[in-house]
Amino acid sequence: MTIGNVMVGQSGGPTSVINSSLVGVFKTAKDSGCGKVYGMRNGIEGLLKERYINLSDYIKNDLDIELLKRTPSSFLGTCRYKLPSVEDQPQVYDRLFHILNKLDVKYFFYIGGNDSMDTIMQLSNHAKTINSDIRFIGVPKTIDNDLDHTDHTPGYGSAAKYIASAMKEIIRDASTYPNDSVTIVEIMGRNAGWLTAAAALSNSEDCSGPDLIYLPEKVFDHESFVKKVEGLKKLKTAVVIAVSEGVKTADGKYVCEANKQNVFTDSFGHKALGGTALYLADFLGENIGVKSRGIVFSTLQRCASHLVSRRDITEAFQAGADAVLAAIAGETGMMVTFKRISNAPYSLITEVHDINEIANAEKVVPDEWITNNGTYVSKEFEEYARPLIIGELSPFMVDGLPRHLFIDK
Amino acid sequence: MTIGNVMVGQSGGPTSVINSSLVGVFKTAKDSGCGKVYGMRNGIEGLLKERYINLSDYIKNDLDIELLKRTPSSFLGTCRYKLPSVEDQPQVYDRLFHILNKLDVKYFFYIGGNDSMDTIMQLSNHAKTINSDIRFIGVPKTIDNDLDHTDHTPGYGSAAKYIASAMKEIIRDASTYPNDSVTIVEIMGRNAGWLTAAAALSNSEDCSGPDLIYLPEKVFDHESFVKKVEGLKKLKTAVVIAVSEGVKTADGKYVCEANKQNVFTDSFGHKALGGTALYLADFLGENIGVKSRGIVFSTLQRCASHLVSRRDITEAFQAGADAVLAAIAGETGMMVTFKRISNAPYSLITEVHDINEIANAEKVVPDEWITNNGTYVSKEFEEYARPLIIGELSPFMVDGLPRHLFIDK
Repeated sequence: MTIGNVMVGQSGGPTSVINSSLVGVFKTAKDSGCGKVYGMRNGIEGLLKERYINLSDYIKNDLDIELLKRTPSSFLGTCRYKLPSVEDQPQVYDRLFHILNKLDVKYFFYIGGNDSMDTIMQLSNHAKTINSDIRFIGVPKTIDNDLDHTDHTPGYGSAAKYIASAMKEIIRDASTYPNDSVTIVEIMGRNAGWLTAAAALSNSEDCSGPDLIYLPEKVFDHESFVKKVEGLKKLKTAVVIAVSEGVKTADGKYVCEANKQNVFTDSFGHKALGGTALYLADFLGENIGVKSRGIVFSTLQRCASHLVSRRDITEAFQAGADAVLAAIAGETGMMVTFKRISNAPYSLITEVHDINEIANAEKVVPDEWITNNGTYVSKEFEEYARPLIIGELSPFMVDGLPRHLFIDK
Repeated sequence: MTIGNVMVGQSGGPTSVINSSLVGVFKTAKDSGCGKVYGMRNGIEGLLKERYINLSDYIKNDLDIELLKRTPSSFLGTCRYKLPSVEDQPQVYDRLFHILNKLDVKYFFYIGGNDSMDTIMQLSNHAKTINSDIRFIGVPKTIDNDLDHTDHTPGYGSAAKYIASAMKEIIRDASTYPNDSVTIVEIMGRNAGWLTAAAALSNSEDCSGPDLIYLPEKVFDHESFVKKVEGLKKLKTAVVIAVSEGVKTADGKYVCEANKQNVFTDSFGHKALGGTALYLADFLGENIGVKSRGIVFSTLQRCASHLVSRRDITEAFQAGADAVLAAIAGETGMMVTFKRISNAPYSLITEVHDINEIANAEKVVPDEWITNNGTYVSKEFEEYARPLIIGELSPFMVDGLPRHLFIDK
């Protein structure tokens, strides 16, 4: 006799620690007396096609659990599927609840960002309408750190650690030449500059950090950019700049759009960005004749599980675990949130918060944390972010390479 | 009473392990009864301006030695300075030997690639002409692995390990989406495909590896490229391709040149490459309408000291150490080379080889190791390369970030 089956899915862009949340859900559900733990393949999009697995067939022992914590990307596969409104397509909801009822699912967990929380919101609201007793809880996940009502999101700490570490290495590399150069490093973040701000964490006893940091929260001005770089060139040979892929000019256009013929738009209406660093490197080359290089972290910043924050891994697990405990305690239509009690010593508790206030909202970097006319971040940001990158989790190395757990299709 | 002072420099593109060779020179010189160990700042270009340090002022204890092994990029600074011929500018040689004699230098070591070995060749040949007793030995260093007369070069193993590890993570990331996509990963290597070939090492029990590998040794044909990708698209959703930055079309032009107005050329006459992956991603998008992403490892592949091959670190140290021992034994005009005794168990010895046969030569991937009509590499390549990525050397993590040793200017 169990307290009910579980359905869990992963959605949106993957992270290095999203599988730690999956493990948190799986292990806690098993330990709490739930029955089967189903994993939807490719999120809600796969579930609609009845594509799911029994996770116990794939996570067979404690070694698998540890291996899965060290596996980047979404173990179950992901999707970018936007659930239609129940008014527009009631049959989609009928189908989903039919599948869940057939499998005797009582607890539904979706690990994702603000778009994915929209799914939890729609489903939990519909469950109330139809008096379903299935409970829907969101597990936060995004390297972008842009979910509201939570101190931070699982995935951010590891991406920030990767960015800061790689930035140190890039600065060391760029500084070794005697000739003038400008290196522009492009970092993810459409509207929120949390990831780009993390470049500032590379500032340490042995590294001066980047010289300029451009967040998408502030308007990007080409003219003042050139002036800043010209000023820096007089002071040092190797100028290194962190820039968000999402920086925009005063007319609201992405800087990278200047470089592109067509911009791909996904099902949530988000434009595919990229090319900002290369465009700006070319722009500097043409305007001030300095040797410039663009470096783009691309997906590496979200999948470099060989360099995760141990604290992030632990908190990601906890977010999954506490989602299960909250559902069992009767909560639904909620997302697990983090509340920071103190910075030093770092202390954190989890809570849950109404999904209706979280879905589709974006939390950006506060204005007072953006300094130097929009070209750096404050000490307060550093105090906020530094605890999140602490600690390492060694990958399991086999024949010199990190080993992952995967589903053999 | 010492056996003479030492001058050591680093030149060309840095690697993750170039400082391990520096430490090998320093420690072995000290242990062998040499006097002062001077380090030229920014290679021969700095030495000509009498910019050098006494390394003992910076490497003060065994902890510094270990820290320096874990520090990427060239600790002493580097240069891309081409020594003029003695016929053209005898005064440059007069000046260099004057500086070396003034400092009572008896042993001169230059850690670098084939361009840097040209410097050792010129100086050692000139020393013979003027009957100088200063001995000149080259220490191999290049992620490109393109030096002749050596089994491989220090720096290659760590870059290969980074490439194979990151490739696993990228493949995992790309494969998580249900939609068709093509990911093109651009890897360094102007004329030699050793680094790009290392992408094949990601093929392991938990990863199928990249689908196509394009080396610069083979002509790149756009038409057959499109056909290959179309064929793969029928078999799988996420196609991942490794491509060298240096691939060329039949007319001898770099593929990336199609994308550029002006191509920067350095003092050795090498064109600055880059943009191949983005160009090919756009090209595929336009021609077969698939969502394509270009990822460029850029300098990360040569400076990611947080993920080095321990074997590479050890061998880099040994190359520096054995250069000192060879010089003390009376050798000059030589480069330290590696000779592999066996693959399993892996066994290696060092030798020295006449620098005149090494300088300015490039060793490319043998034709018989390039398979599938120039789109993959053979098992023989894998057997050659796999032993080189074995073992890890944990970075010294401070506040969540790798710590480095550096010279405060």
